[in-house]
Amino acid sequence: MTERTYRRHEPVKGNTAQSPVLPAAPTRGRLRPLGLDEVRITGGFWARRRHTNATATLGHCRDWMEREGWTGNFRAAAEGRIHRDRRGREFADSEIYKLLEAMAWEGAAYDAEITALTDAIAPAQDPDGYLNTAFGRPGQQPRYSDLEWGHELYCHGHLIQAGVAQARARGEGELTKIARRAADHVCATFGPGGNPGVCGHPEIETALVELARLTGEQRYLDQAALFLDRRGHGTLADIEFGRAYYQDDMPVRRAGVLRGHAVRALYLAAGAVDVAVETGDDALLAAVVRQWEATVARRTYLTGGMGSHHRDESFGDDFVLPPDRAYSETCAGVASVLLAWRLLLATGEPRFADLAERTLFNVIATSPSDDGRAFFYANTLHRRHRGTLPPADRVSPRADSGLRAPWFAVSCCPTNVARTLAQLPAYLATADDNGVQLHQYADAELATTLADGQDVALRVRTDYPSGGRVAVRISRSPARPWTLSLRVPAWTAGATAWLVDPDGRRRTAAPGTARLTRVFRPGDEIRLELPVAPRWTGSDPRIDAIRGTVAVERGPLVYCAESADLPDGHDVDALRVDPSAEPEDGPDGTVVAPGELAAPVDSHDSAWPYRPLDRATPPTADRTGITLVPYHSWANRGPSTMRVWLPATQSPTTPPTTPTRR
Amino acid sequence: MTERTYRRHEPVKGNTAQSPVLPAAPTRGRLRPLGLDEVRITGGFWARRRHTNATATLGHCRDWMEREGWTGNFRAAAEGRIHRDRRGREFADSEIYKLLEAMAWEGAAYDAEITALTDAIAPAQDPDGYLNTAFGRPGQQPRYSDLEWGHELYCHGHLIQAGVAQARARGEGELTKIARRAADHVCATFGPGGNPGVCGHPEIETALVELARLTGEQRYLDQAALFLDRRGHGTLADIEFGRAYYQDDMPVRRAGVLRGHAVRALYLAAGAVDVAVETGDDALLAAVVRQWEATVARRTYLTGGMGSHHRDESFGDDFVLPPDRAYSETCAGVASVLLAWRLLLATGEPRFADLAERTLFNVIATSPSDDGRAFFYANTLHRRHRGTLPPADRVSPRADSGLRAPWFAVSCCPTNVARTLAQLPAYLATADDNGVQLHQYADAELATTLADGQDVALRVRTDYPSGGRVAVRISRSPARPWTLSLRVPAWTAGATAWLVDPDGRRRTAAPGTARLTRVFRPGDEIRLELPVAPRWTGSDPRIDAIRGTVAVERGPLVYCAESADLPDGHDVDALRVDPSAEPEDGPDGTVVAPGELAAPVDSHDSAWPYRPLDRATPPTADRTGITLVPYHSWANRGPSTMRVWLPATQSPTTPPTTPTRR
Repeated sequence: MTERTYRRHEPVKGNTAQSPVLPAAPTRGRLRPLGLDEVRITGGFWARRRHTNATATLGHCRDWMEREGWTGNFRAAAEGRIHRDRRGREFADSEIYKLLEAMAWEGAAYDAEITALTDAIAPAQDPDGYLNTAFGRPGQQPRYSDLEWGHELYCHGHLIQAGVAQARARGEGELTKIARRAADHVCATFGPGGNPGVCGHPEIETALVELARLTGEQRYLDQAALFLDRRGHGTLADIEFGRAYYQDDMPVRRAGVLRGHAVRALYLAAGAVDVAVETGDDALLAAVVRQWEATVARRTYLTGGMGSHHRDESFGDDFVLPPDRAYSETCAGVASVLLAWRLLLATGEPRFADLAERTLFNVIATSPSDDGRAFFYANTLHRRHRGTLPPADRVSPRADSGLRAPWFAVSCCPTNVARTLAQLPAYLATADDNGVQLHQYADAELATTLADGQDVALRVRTDYPSGGRVAVRISRSPARPWTLSLRVPAWTAGATAWLVDPDGRRRTAAPGTARLTRVFRPGDEIRLELPVAPRWTGSDPRIDAIRGTVAVERGPLVYCAESADLPDGHDVDALRVDPSAEPEDGPDGTVVAPGELAAPVDSHDSAWPYRPLDRATPPTADRTGITLVPYHSWANRGPSTMRVWLPATQSPTTPPTTPTRR
Repeated sequence: MTERTYRRHEPVKGNTAQSPVLPAAPTRGRLRPLGLDEVRITGGFWARRRHTNATATLGHCRDWMEREGWTGNFRAAAEGRIHRDRRGREFADSEIYKLLEAMAWEGAAYDAEITALTDAIAPAQDPDGYLNTAFGRPGQQPRYSDLEWGHELYCHGHLIQAGVAQARARGEGELTKIARRAADHVCATFGPGGNPGVCGHPEIETALVELARLTGEQRYLDQAALFLDRRGHGTLADIEFGRAYYQDDMPVRRAGVLRGHAVRALYLAAGAVDVAVETGDDALLAAVVRQWEATVARRTYLTGGMGSHHRDESFGDDFVLPPDRAYSETCAGVASVLLAWRLLLATGEPRFADLAERTLFNVIATSPSDDGRAFFYANTLHRRHRGTLPPADRVSPRADSGLRAPWFAVSCCPTNVARTLAQLPAYLATADDNGVQLHQYADAELATTLADGQDVALRVRTDYPSGGRVAVRISRSPARPWTLSLRVPAWTAGATAWLVDPDGRRRTAAPGTARLTRVFRPGDEIRLELPVAPRWTGSDPRIDAIRGTVAVERGPLVYCAESADLPDGHDVDALRVDPSAEPEDGPDGTVVAPGELAAPVDSHDSAWPYRPLDRATPPTADRTGITLVPYHSWANRGPSTMRVWLPATQSPTTPPTTPTRR
């Protein structure tokens, strides 16, 4: 049934040795990731977000899972009463594991918490390594009796990722051992000649590859490759949503675009990149790159968000991207960053870092509230009614709740955001034989060792993302030439970015990568100047739902109009903007767009809304500046209405589609 | 808990006596419905559809339900093996009842089939009248243990409607007796002091009122009113979709707009009208009218289709009407006609017949294939990919399957279309003390008796809907003045309709109702001339998803572009129309719209679809006529792409919203 054509290589354990903290540490691939001990974020936008994550969100998640009984499930399992006492959904175990992973990346401060949670989990593990509180005990469904929806391998995957995180960030501990026993059980059960199934929710694949990287053990990689090969042959049952829902409709290397459930599709693609890199399978890597290209070109929101269907949390058809029905699940944003990071490491191409940046600032950063204690699960791009805030003391039953909620019946997003923010410094920079590459910009300190054993250290200072000045000061450098590479974001196209070398020489920097190769000296400063003036953005005419509208972006940030900034009695659906003039910076990080505000419409009108065309002039409206705020900041001032895509007073046109890559 | 403020009246049995066939026979209300023995459709569009329904669809439904084992469930229940042998979804029983209702309205030809199916059902009825194959027997969940999702009262409702249909169309028979026993059980179980619940799916309300009208028994009406009053107080559990899903979020008389699951909302509203009319509750009637107005103004597709959410088959927020994600369930179309008909009878206002016409021609007529053996469940307004036809020999697991399928796992729509087409003649005309009203136009013969016992008979000849000439020839008339009323459709606004009296005098007829009062003589002919030239239709700018597009309508028909009519290699997403020129009639019922066709786009382009605005001229395209076909006819020539809303070469403007009613 399989078409395993790729070459086999032994996993190499080496390159993680000095980097205990690596979300993904491929042994082959263009760039080498740096660990959290090599890169620190020291200030600015992401430092504030990470501080809130460490001091509020992690404890918030722990408390809610204790309160909801999800942590207690492990105790109930060990005490033989789980069949009547179990709480939460079938995948609740995985939330504990994602929180553990986040705590591990956060460092020593959470060691005691990790020990306590690990002690809670450990007694629930069966002697053969199986660990799941929803299946397999008396009074429960048998193990692996519902591969479509049971999430058992998915949960094992998150357990393994938590164990790998502990080993890399804090040194191998009890959690790592539990994870290895679980992985051994998975290999023994689903290996050649065993259970021929796969999990309805991909995740185990990438976890097993990471464990192979950590331990150097081939069998984990083999098992991941086997899971990958089995999928796409009708291995799982047909369901109401179709087999595409869990990517079982066609083999991963044959697909042309990501489809089905967005998180499932993106996790699977990440696992495919991991396997491709470890086995040198260039055809598989090329297949995923091709799918990523098509997905970004036709199935991605301006924010980087993915997935427009609420019904099955799936990608829609090409160009079906309605702002008011955007699902854009937070977890799909996390998964997209995980995939983009792997593709960046594998290829070195800046376009993957471009999408990761867009998604980090406009999806990941949007989900948590300012205080880190409430979360968007879905991230709409247009909200028409204010609604009411979900109560702070109750679980929200609805995943697509319009406003941030403290906790959900399906609460995958909070812990996913938590682990992403905890590991964020690892996504800033990489190294290769010739030097260091900066992919994301934040105040940071970086120290690493090049392939020849020479140390490099540098310090980044920037006002990013509100400003575009990036200053890199060399603090340590070998006395030989090496290359500093800086990503010049794709969003600078149409304006000019400048690179200033240590001697003060300026040159323009085209979107892509700006490189400077020389003998650097401590104290040398390299500057990148990115044009962050607010800009209009149009869209491909095939995205029907936003025809006749424009958006405003500024640097990497997508902006939006929020009712809180409009005069009383007006709403976001009464505004129009005029793209023949330019948007300008306003106070406090806002942008003011030229436009007009129509008189409030009588909301009780009862006219049939489809009418003969009237070619007379449109109704008059008052010309005014429309205040816009960063999309990630919306809904922090109470319930509001909001829109990213702004109706234009005149039809904006966009250039014809060209196959250029950005 | 209730706020029952309405007055009580004894149901009156009288006015159904000469009209055995009445889908809804209110005892109070502005207009009196005519039965199938008073109105016959003799030719034209609907005659062809009804012929296919009677000769193909009814047998098709019967065969599929036999084959899928849904009919066999009743036998299995009687034989005590239902707990292991039951087939189909929890509401499968109701499909048999809807088919029985359709057969009853079809007349004598189906008497034997009705007897056979009734014989199959009868043994499954419990001695106390309860009848359901999914609950209550050993090995099954107890009766009424899952009011949210169990559909037991919903099934009883459809059983009662089938029994009423038999009594009215064919005379009281065994099916009627079974239905009455079931209704007695419902009253005994859910009456005052009994089970205080309501059903998750409204339907029992309108059925009980109809049974009260048939039998003259007050208690059925009381029970319907009780169900109505109980709903909206959190009587049912909160669920993932929220209590609005089954209209349990607020009392029916307080709501401002229809919301939640579209079919549920519309059935409930129909039941509310029935109760309001029977009890003289003008406030309740006014509440439903207000909700209908808001729903039509803000939550209805151009086709009359309702419901844009696939996730929970619900209405979306106001103005969330994306064509490519239109759900517009066929059953919601049926339910909307049932509601509009009741409101028309209650008020006499032609706007309700306008919406019924729109929905009949563009939703109900769209669902079945030309051969009557495959059905749209959802009726999208834009299909981007051709896809493949569902196999003719297999159940389609997916309700929102893009193309017509022979049968569904949830197969509510085929039998709902079948019963609607079977009872269609009853929706053409009404009578009141002063005369006869024609609401829908088809070749037909009508004979009824006015309030003073005088006979009226007339014959309608028309080329509707492809033409707009309606000729009404009087064949019998009393020798006193009476009034013939003809609906002048709202879609004639902007053009001129003419009424020609028997003396050949012409006068313009404004949208609404044209009346002619005189002493008619046999042989008199009255003509209505409706302007059916194709016309552009624009939309309220608050419907974001169709900004910058226009549609074409012609008479009561919505038109669409279908890929089958474009040159090879072109697709519907490459066309633009020019609303500065006029669409014109083409051959064979087509319309040709002025426009242009862009060169095919490379579908493999991988460009980020959001770009800086280019204010240069848009890409050139070839000017051409775009062929459009009636929407109801699409997808009968194999898989195709289709769109109703056509991108405009220049921004169409529509007049500002005004609170006029149409």
